[in-house]
Amino acid sequence: MEWIAADWGTSNLRAWAMRGDRVVAEASSPQGMGALAPDQFEDALLALIGDWPGRGDVVACGMVGARQGWIEAPYTMTPCPARPGALVAAPARTPGLRVRIIPGVAQSDPADVMRGEETQIAGFLHLNPGWDGTLCLPGTHTKWVQLSAGEIVSFRTFMSGEMFAALGAHTVLRHSLAGDGTDEHAFATAVAEGMAAPAQLAQRLFAIRAEGLLHGLSPAQARGRLSGLLIGAELQAAKGWWLGADVAVIGTGALARRYGAALAAQGVQAQITDGSVVTLAGLIAAHHGATP
Amino acid sequence: MEWIAADWGTSNLRAWAMRGDRVVAEASSPQGMGALAPDQFEDALLALIGDWPGRGDVVACGMVGARQGWIEAPYTMTPCPARPGALVAAPARTPGLRVRIIPGVAQSDPADVMRGEETQIAGFLHLNPGWDGTLCLPGTHTKWVQLSAGEIVSFRTFMSGEMFAALGAHTVLRHSLAGDGTDEHAFATAVAEGMAAPAQLAQRLFAIRAEGLLHGLSPAQARGRLSGLLIGAELQAAKGWWLGADVAVIGTGALARRYGAALAAQGVQAQITDGSVVTLAGLIAAHHGATP
Repeated sequence: MEWIAADWGTSNLRAWAMRGDRVVAEASSPQGMGALAPDQFEDALLALIGDWPGRGDVVACGMVGARQGWIEAPYTMTPCPARPGALVAAPARTPGLRVRIIPGVAQSDPADVMRGEETQIAGFLHLNPGWDGTLCLPGTHTKWVQLSAGEIVSFRTFMSGEMFAALGAHTVLRHSLAGDGTDEHAFATAVAEGMAAPAQLAQRLFAIRAEGLLHGLSPAQARGRLSGLLIGAELQAAKGWWLGADVAVIGTGALARRYGAALAAQGVQAQITDGSVVTLAGLIAAHHGATP
Repeated sequence: MEWIAADWGTSNLRAWAMRGDRVVAEASSPQGMGALAPDQFEDALLALIGDWPGRGDVVACGMVGARQGWIEAPYTMTPCPARPGALVAAPARTPGLRVRIIPGVAQSDPADVMRGEETQIAGFLHLNPGWDGTLCLPGTHTKWVQLSAGEIVSFRTFMSGEMFAALGAHTVLRHSLAGDGTDEHAFATAVAEGMAAPAQLAQRLFAIRAEGLLHGLSPAQARGRLSGLLIGAELQAAKGWWLGADVAVIGTGALARRYGAALAAQGVQAQITDGSVVTLAGLIAAHHGATP
């Protein structure tokens, strides 16, 4: 019962050699969707999985199923079951190679899309059967997802993470952030400011630069401030989703911890769950559903 | 009475050969502060003004006086007179070349800085003596300035313009904006949305991308939406500055017109004044004040 699980995003490809539900090997490469033309996916996959057994049954999620990916796996529309939809077969030349892709989920109004997170959601529910509440999936495009009775009821994407990267690298703030670390106190203060006065974002961002010039604000303080202002505005906008709800944050590392801390400051004790674990669980759930 | 007026910003240098208050020649180059080391400013100026008469008396404003400029012209702190402060002489090797720089203006709390706009403000007052009210100077770093009795009382900088550029070029929105034009109806609608729900900025930005994928939003609509959401949030934050006040917008072209239209939708009829005209008027006012 060998097969291969693959998490194939814009920037990376990660694969696990599986025996049933158990991982026997794993590998990753920078051959993400963004670096590949449609006819290059097969070679990129084979270069990574080499002679692993199980390539007769590859289940993949993520941007590999986007319009610019290996093959487009059309979105499932919300509301929809929070388990993987019907997998889409990718064309392959190699004898014995069978690749199937988990479709993303879209919402018509407000218009929104996800690819990859639907697998994490399925994995979270696989590990926490019957769970109802709000999932927060921080990242480049942070998702807030309302789950009820095993369905994705609605979701919202905030591009706060990508805004942080673009504003920190491609505006005058790059001078302010030239240095290491993140000041957690500056972050917490800025979350409160961002929540209280989200309209002032563009002004408070410039004030980061001005405080550096006039008052010696440090790079770590500047980075905490930039992150906190963006996440604070996001928490204000998502308030109806987390206030009085069960909340789980999916992710590892500093960003997930920071979302957890910001929610805790609002009196919400969010469960924090490792992102890789739920991705793999979602791929396993898809494999179970997909195996004939 | 020949002299030279120079507007020297981050990206450009623009110079006028003057006889008294009258322009007799003008020229510009891409040798902005951002492209020059401190010891390269003199050559960049001479390369532009060539054999113009009047180089015994050059008055310059803008980022040329920043810490990374020709020489730092320390900020005047608000509140301060809305006319140019004491000029700072720049070191020059060329016999007969005398260059003096108009200092920028800074504010301690909230921390804020300007370099170049103080000259436009002085020019506006030179052309409109006794004017009280709020000036809006749209641009990369849009300034809102409270003028009363010939003084800069307070000001706020919003980096909405630079946010537009960074988000439009360095995020997933670059796909949505790949095309020409700006849809003014989409702009007006987005201004209203940005004012009403500024916290939702990061989500509404991602929705631009999602509406392109799902509903065929055009690049012109996407550009109008991005601009409108940012300017709407800014107008909401600056409401206390323009509501019930006399407002003048300083600038030319589409951006100034768009600020004017957004204010008009709020019932504020702003006067729109050409930016180059007030810059030159401010340099003339500085030259009057500075000439022994």
